[in-house]
Amino acid sequence: MRSFIYVESANHFPIQNLPYGVFLREGKSNEPRVGVAIGEYILDLSVLEKEGYFNETPIQNEKVFSECSLNKFMSKGHEAWQAVRNVLQKVLHEDEPKLRDNQPLREQAFVLQKDATMLLPVEIGDYTDFYASKEHAANVGTMFRGKENALMPNWTHLPVGYHGRASSVVVSGTDFHRPQGQVKPADATTPIFTPCRQLDFELEMGCFVGPGNDLGEPVSVDNAEENIFGLVLVNDWSARDIQAWEYQPLGPFLAKNFATSISPWVVPLAALEPFRVAGPKQEPKPLPYLQTSKPDSYDIKLEVYIQGDKMEKRQLLATSNYKHLYWSIAQQVAHHTITGCNLNAGDLLASGTISGPDKESRGSLLEIAWRGTEPVELENGEQRSWIEDGDELTITGWCDGDGYRVGFGEVKGRVLPAKENLLGSSKQEKVTAHS
Amino acid sequence: MRSFIYVESANHFPIQNLPYGVFLREGKSNEPRVGVAIGEYILDLSVLEKEGYFNETPIQNEKVFSECSLNKFMSKGHEAWQAVRNVLQKVLHEDEPKLRDNQPLREQAFVLQKDATMLLPVEIGDYTDFYASKEHAANVGTMFRGKENALMPNWTHLPVGYHGRASSVVVSGTDFHRPQGQVKPADATTPIFTPCRQLDFELEMGCFVGPGNDLGEPVSVDNAEENIFGLVLVNDWSARDIQAWEYQPLGPFLAKNFATSISPWVVPLAALEPFRVAGPKQEPKPLPYLQTSKPDSYDIKLEVYIQGDKMEKRQLLATSNYKHLYWSIAQQVAHHTITGCNLNAGDLLASGTISGPDKESRGSLLEIAWRGTEPVELENGEQRSWIEDGDELTITGWCDGDGYRVGFGEVKGRVLPAKENLLGSSKQEKVTAHS
Repeated sequence: MRSFIYVESANHFPIQNLPYGVFLREGKSNEPRVGVAIGEYILDLSVLEKEGYFNETPIQNEKVFSECSLNKFMSKGHEAWQAVRNVLQKVLHEDEPKLRDNQPLREQAFVLQKDATMLLPVEIGDYTDFYASKEHAANVGTMFRGKENALMPNWTHLPVGYHGRASSVVVSGTDFHRPQGQVKPADATTPIFTPCRQLDFELEMGCFVGPGNDLGEPVSVDNAEENIFGLVLVNDWSARDIQAWEYQPLGPFLAKNFATSISPWVVPLAALEPFRVAGPKQEPKPLPYLQTSKPDSYDIKLEVYIQGDKMEKRQLLATSNYKHLYWSIAQQVAHHTITGCNLNAGDLLASGTISGPDKESRGSLLEIAWRGTEPVELENGEQRSWIEDGDELTITGWCDGDGYRVGFGEVKGRVLPAKENLLGSSKQEKVTAHS
Repeated sequence: MRSFIYVESANHFPIQNLPYGVFLREGKSNEPRVGVAIGEYILDLSVLEKEGYFNETPIQNEKVFSECSLNKFMSKGHEAWQAVRNVLQKVLHEDEPKLRDNQPLREQAFVLQKDATMLLPVEIGDYTDFYASKEHAANVGTMFRGKENALMPNWTHLPVGYHGRASSVVVSGTDFHRPQGQVKPADATTPIFTPCRQLDFELEMGCFVGPGNDLGEPVSVDNAEENIFGLVLVNDWSARDIQAWEYQPLGPFLAKNFATSISPWVVPLAALEPFRVAGPKQEPKPLPYLQTSKPDSYDIKLEVYIQGDKMEKRQLLATSNYKHLYWSIAQQVAHHTITGCNLNAGDLLASGTISGPDKESRGSLLEIAWRGTEPVELENGEQRSWIEDGDELTITGWCDGDGYRVGFGEVKGRVLPAKENLLGSSKQEKVTAHS
């Protein structure tokens, strides 16, 4: 299947993908609108909507694409998503003249991605972060509790997760200042106030819920995927030193709520269908409410790059794959709702750090540099145990099809120096030395 | 100060209070609107707004009271809240004829509370739950780790908190089914799926944020209270057996996200000003960003009642006081934002269980029945270690003024039996025996 819009074979956005995003057109009205990515372009769905292209779908007579978020469309449910996707794949097809040969409409409807500003695509209600990679949990557990006690007893029985902070989820390209807070150095008896000295990234992916479930009405594991709109890349920035001091007994709080970056394009679950694979074998067998009846993972290749402000180009830091995750999206949704918790359209469920079985597939600096004991060598001679001021982290991910890619684009973010005179505190220096 | 609306001295809603809520009028249009409670009545602010009563305030020309939530009003900030409060206290004053003598308008503007349905007053963006009572943390710590290790080392240095689930916050009067989930009995080697056997309440209070702060811009402890709109009663229902199995290492998740009940009336911080008191002495002295320069707690009396389905009337279960909390609202806000986390209008910050120094002031059944070892004797001869099906819990709270009360009304909720055939599971019996 090919579009009349030319798409290179390595481009993330062929007609097989069609991810949704929210964008502003440069120089034109400042109204955000919903679009899909196709090659180097964005197809502005608010234009097609006005032209009646979706009149034969369940969203007929409703304006869902002249919105500042995908939430309204997400709330319409699986059948509506599929119907719109069918229209788009038909209309963009190389053999379909309706849009292809309507030059005035094409000029209205297509925008070069480089001429648009991508916005946070979803108004996120609640954000949940899981801990679904066995390798990540085992790595972290080994570092903090030793190899014998690496995994907590509950880990192989349920997808461990916790509630995250929705308000501080930001779109790719949003730089942020190094967080400051309370830390207790190992050799001190009392805590100090300091810029974070152990800033980390976490390679994650997240899925957006739609339309959700009512309070008290769990979603069964077999119906769970119908409640998922699509996936994005996630970088769950983490302040490890703040986390170590604060997290007992109620879990991470400030260490994770200063910024969580997501990619701007939400790839529909339907686009990932050709890349469905089985996840790792689950032993012991989970309780019936978590047992899935079909392969429920996806073969998504993932890469993380770092570029410091003294580096000429970015350098590969890690390669991993979504399929390494032990607990699937379907299991996450089934577990999340089993006590009756209601999910709403726009909720974000992130996977937790996606580490794989190899050293190269570790999804955080905590693991890559093994808590600072094995610093990363950069090509320009620098080392990294933790993220330094000026470092830009980029995560990318894609599925390899036969002559095409279904990709997620990128999520980028750069760390600026800690703010000076925060709350009138004394001048703080740029952090380069790490404890 | 007295209103022309008669208010008994024990009534929670005199002219000194004027809490905000969102309600539906019986039999009339189904449009929610914002009101304030006065005695047995609600004053419908959408009516006054239409009549121009707020034209001299910062909300002039904006409809903020014909809304389905308080969020828009909360986002207007401290000066707008104070200006509206001044108008309302003037207009309701016994000596002010404007509304008092306008019988047609009074008939439009006043609704008996018994003829209205109260809705969830706020569209909650993010919900944070703190752990701010030293007595509660020490009680729980003693039970689980022994008296010597009761408090974690971080507890006296920072207000421990975690992100809660916003979607499952419900308004008083919302009954719910006993949650079901994964539990590992002490004598079992693997977990089982079961209705919760250790269902608990938590006596808490919560404050609503408005207007909030930008990402990366912490709120100082001295400016924190200006960012608080008002307070409500909170019952943070908890499934202790689910919690015990799931919570390591990332904190409570499903144990707390099936229902969190709040009272419908949000009491403005200004109404609590006469009841400002100092909280407990803080030793060790916290870091500068948590040091407050004035008394920052409130003398709010709190009571919890239980009524089982075989009891003729409710029975007092606990009495506590908000002033026992070790960490204040100002400190909670300053801490929450210190790494840069953005708070938005409508965010809820709950206190955590408010236990006091006495046995009678324990704010959860976990503590009252000391993990099932000291069951509560009910007046009809029954016992309670945990909450049973049919039990209704009521929390109430008020400040005692000179001849009047500034009260919070009540938050009520009743536990229904676990749903049968949840996800096709086998029939489950009513839970009366507890492990």
